[in-house]
Amino acid sequence: MLTLPALIAHPGVVLAGATDLRPEALQRFSEEFGAPGYATLDELLQDETIDAVYIATPHDLHAVQTLAALRAGKHVLVEKPMATSVEDCLAMAGAAREAGLALIVGPSHGFDEQVRTAASLVASREFGQVRMVTALNFTDFMFRPRRPEELDPARGGGVVFSQAAHQIDVVRRLVGSPVTGIRAVTANWDSQRPSDGAYTALMTFEGGAAASLSYSGYAHYDSDELLGWISELGQTKDPELYGQARRQLARIGTEGEQSAKAARTYGGDGPRSAKAPHHEHFGFIIVSCEKADMKLLPTGIEIYENERRIFHPIAPPKVPRAAVLEEFVAAVAGRPTGLHDGQWGLETMACCRALIMSSSQGTDVDPRKIITDLQVENFK
Amino acid sequence: MLTLPALIAHPGVVLAGATDLRPEALQRFSEEFGAPGYATLDELLQDETIDAVYIATPHDLHAVQTLAALRAGKHVLVEKPMATSVEDCLAMAGAAREAGLALIVGPSHGFDEQVRTAASLVASREFGQVRMVTALNFTDFMFRPRRPEELDPARGGGVVFSQAAHQIDVVRRLVGSPVTGIRAVTANWDSQRPSDGAYTALMTFEGGAAASLSYSGYAHYDSDELLGWISELGQTKDPELYGQARRQLARIGTEGEQSAKAARTYGGDGPRSAKAPHHEHFGFIIVSCEKADMKLLPTGIEIYENERRIFHPIAPPKVPRAAVLEEFVAAVAGRPTGLHDGQWGLETMACCRALIMSSSQGTDVDPRKIITDLQVENFK
Repeated sequence: MLTLPALIAHPGVVLAGATDLRPEALQRFSEEFGAPGYATLDELLQDETIDAVYIATPHDLHAVQTLAALRAGKHVLVEKPMATSVEDCLAMAGAAREAGLALIVGPSHGFDEQVRTAASLVASREFGQVRMVTALNFTDFMFRPRRPEELDPARGGGVVFSQAAHQIDVVRRLVGSPVTGIRAVTANWDSQRPSDGAYTALMTFEGGAAASLSYSGYAHYDSDELLGWISELGQTKDPELYGQARRQLARIGTEGEQSAKAARTYGGDGPRSAKAPHHEHFGFIIVSCEKADMKLLPTGIEIYENERRIFHPIAPPKVPRAAVLEEFVAAVAGRPTGLHDGQWGLETMACCRALIMSSSQGTDVDPRKIITDLQVENFK
Repeated sequence: MLTLPALIAHPGVVLAGATDLRPEALQRFSEEFGAPGYATLDELLQDETIDAVYIATPHDLHAVQTLAALRAGKHVLVEKPMATSVEDCLAMAGAAREAGLALIVGPSHGFDEQVRTAASLVASREFGQVRMVTALNFTDFMFRPRRPEELDPARGGGVVFSQAAHQIDVVRRLVGSPVTGIRAVTANWDSQRPSDGAYTALMTFEGGAAASLSYSGYAHYDSDELLGWISELGQTKDPELYGQARRQLARIGTEGEQSAKAARTYGGDGPRSAKAPHHEHFGFIIVSCEKADMKLLPTGIEIYENERRIFHPIAPPKVPRAAVLEEFVAAVAGRPTGLHDGQWGLETMACCRALIMSSSQGTDVDPRKIITDLQVENFK
């Protein structure tokens, strides 16, 4: 639902078919877009008018569906997390490369306009080298309506795959060099929703930069207050609605939770979300370069230089998440973009895995080594 | 100068003598307090009317002067950092213990009233176990007037000893259990002031809590904006004075820097600072317990519980830094307080050392091991 406006708006995209488990979603799709709704993915993949597939299914289906789509010769845009294991990501990235097909992982907040702008400023070296990134986000993630697998770590549930994947994408974009190590502690501290709901991590990069990433999905402090009460999705937020997610969840109960989640998906009876006046964001982020700090906001970038502080405004979004469609359509057309491709998604997933391993091992974990160890294993 | 109001205000303290290298400071002291100014520390320590000594000298003098004072039978209040090496701190803590004399390390922001209140709330377990602390502080530390040794890492210069000592004290107070490891990256990125000016660190604690600490002293982004523009010293701050520290420093030059620094010490010709309307603070701090987050402010504590958000106000300070004198006077009187004693200061210094070692080694460093290794070495 959140990416649909971008799909509709992009001149290079025609919605030519869809598949879903729910017949009512397929029926609505056919009515709205005049295109077939298929009962299974296999049937959809046999449709030769379809060039590319957008996969927005539960995390643990991403790998098998992406591989099937690539085998059928379709380009793929797959939601983050790319999959639930590094092994799967390696297979997906490899399959796309071998088939010469586009594979883009997104949307994620790594595509946010202010991230893109700040990353360009870092890359320009206008403010010297990037040395430190400080990122924190305190949300109600754990108390939004969830399908059971979203809270099941074995199926890619919890905040590391869903949320660290965003924060890592953002920080990787900003620093622009490979991650050399992650030291992290994950935490699971609500017996009602037993899954990793928070983490704190220190990331190191080639070239010496370091990043601090903190995240809590336990709906207490809300760091959107540091972003002018603009929500993650770019909507204006009312700070007086404190505790709303937790209260709603308590009111609707476990069964209500499933229908609330379903209502928010395509074909559900929930309202479509209003057009967001601001860009999306992923919490409070300071990028420290040698000669300036930058604070990323959904309205622009505050640049704190040696002598002056200036605000670099960013034009409001015409349509949310347009950047991911731009990148995907360019990749399908064979134009070089390559930013959030399969290799990128694989690396971000290796960082998520490293984050979890570091917490259980109590040491730094190098995400590059996770990937090369698997490559060696596969070669045997 | 910053602690003088608390020394004057405390009914248990009489300023009975002083020593300083500058005759004009001694003369002013005698005029103001009707007590002798001594040309050397040895002479002061021979004054049998003096029970206790407050040592506020450059960092690399703390150890030798503290040990001399303890040998002379004086109780000691020594500024942080306690010394410039863990070896020295071990000797100081041991000497105080053996002599049965009070040794308190302070003031530091670990004494701040909101830290004390939040630490009590954590210890009460009212909100369940403490799981995560997020602390960041972006200041102009590197561009305030400095004596040369304050920027010389070999003499305890740079932000780790001066500033991480505060942040570590705060976080240790809040969590209330021993530090088991530190993973950190320190950074030195201004060739005009070559010293560690920033760091980011992940600390782990017995019981499983973790803390993220980030600090930059490079005077770009100012995190006091997250504290209602109240300065570290509890004064109201004008956000329009952006870049003031750096501009002043450029204007006065290296020689001007030395006289500017001297003007701010006792006997200098700088103005005495105005009474602060708010408590001191050390940046943005969120304490995450199982059932609530707490945000520490110089005016009180925002408590974000499961269902409600409440503000727990803290009465404004009657006199700044009163808490350190309360603790010191109590310790001198033999009453158990023991919070910021020699052992505490030793442990905080071991954390500072661990932070630096972790950055150069690229691994976790256990501050407890730094201390026990030295004890074994000393025993040989």
